[in-house]
Amino acid sequence: MNKDNASLLTEPIVKFFRGKNFGFLGTVNKDGSPQVTPTWIDLIEKEENEDGHEEIILINTAMDRLKQKNVSRDPRVSISIVDEDNPYSMVTIKGRVVEQTTAGADEHIDKLAKRYLNADRYPAHSPSVKRIILKVKPEKIFYLPPRYTEYMQKIK
Amino acid sequence: MNKDNASLLTEPIVKFFRGKNFGFLGTVNKDGSPQVTPTWIDLIEKEENEDGHEEIILINTAMDRLKQKNVSRDPRVSISIVDEDNPYSMVTIKGRVVEQTTAGADEHIDKLAKRYLNADRYPAHSPSVKRIILKVKPEKIFYLPPRYTEYMQKIK
Repeated sequence: MNKDNASLLTEPIVKFFRGKNFGFLGTVNKDGSPQVTPTWIDLIEKEENEDGHEEIILINTAMDRLKQKNVSRDPRVSISIVDEDNPYSMVTIKGRVVEQTTAGADEHIDKLAKRYLNADRYPAHSPSVKRIILKVKPEKIFYLPPRYTEYMQKIK
Repeated sequence: MNKDNASLLTEPIVKFFRGKNFGFLGTVNKDGSPQVTPTWIDLIEKEENEDGHEEIILINTAMDRLKQKNVSRDPRVSISIVDEDNPYSMVTIKGRVVEQTTAGADEHIDKLAKRYLNADRYPAHSPSVKRIILKVKPEKIFYLPPRYTEYMQKIK
């Protein structure tokens, strides 16, 4: 078991994946320029694989979207998340897409639609769109705990 | 006057810069991997320069931060913004840092602190931090108008 990975996503980080926070996924385009796109995010806290238990971030996208094409060329990603309750608490996760799978991707987007939209089914299913799950292995975390709380209370 | 640039940021896009929306700034690290960081954003709707009138996005950061070092090496950026009132309305702006300046950067961060925090002065001024404005020229816009409005009303 890789203990370094097992402990990467500590409790304050895991909380970012429980609410309706978006992840802003950075990938690199073919010409080397950066690309950022907002996306729903999911976390498998303990997934058994050859390295032992570790956390995997799931991003559900569609085949041939820009981000899917980008990570197929270069799997390195950056995911930035701010807390919906206080955007001055944030985490940036550097990682790598270690697997892409269409298996269970339709059911998975329904599960995310429930959490994000409280919809029983993802409202944008389309026969022409093949959904795919990107599995991201976190490698480095940068976390900023809540700041400016006193201002947040006043402007809400 | 460059008419293409003058019309790039139309009214629905400009609105993203009026509220408290963060911009998620994508840059490219030295090793070619992507980097995403949340940031306050500002817009000069009409700035006169050698090309005539055009819009410039301002990002206020500090000298030697990762994003500042990244854009000094490769000025290409991607900025993703979702609407605070409906995160399913979004814009992604592909652009280029065309200028960096420390002139007026302290006053500018105070102005942003007023808009974002309703603070009279930026709370995190520090003598050890030299602030700098990155001027981003937008080159390509991808805009998604509001979606899922019916779900938004229910979960608020």
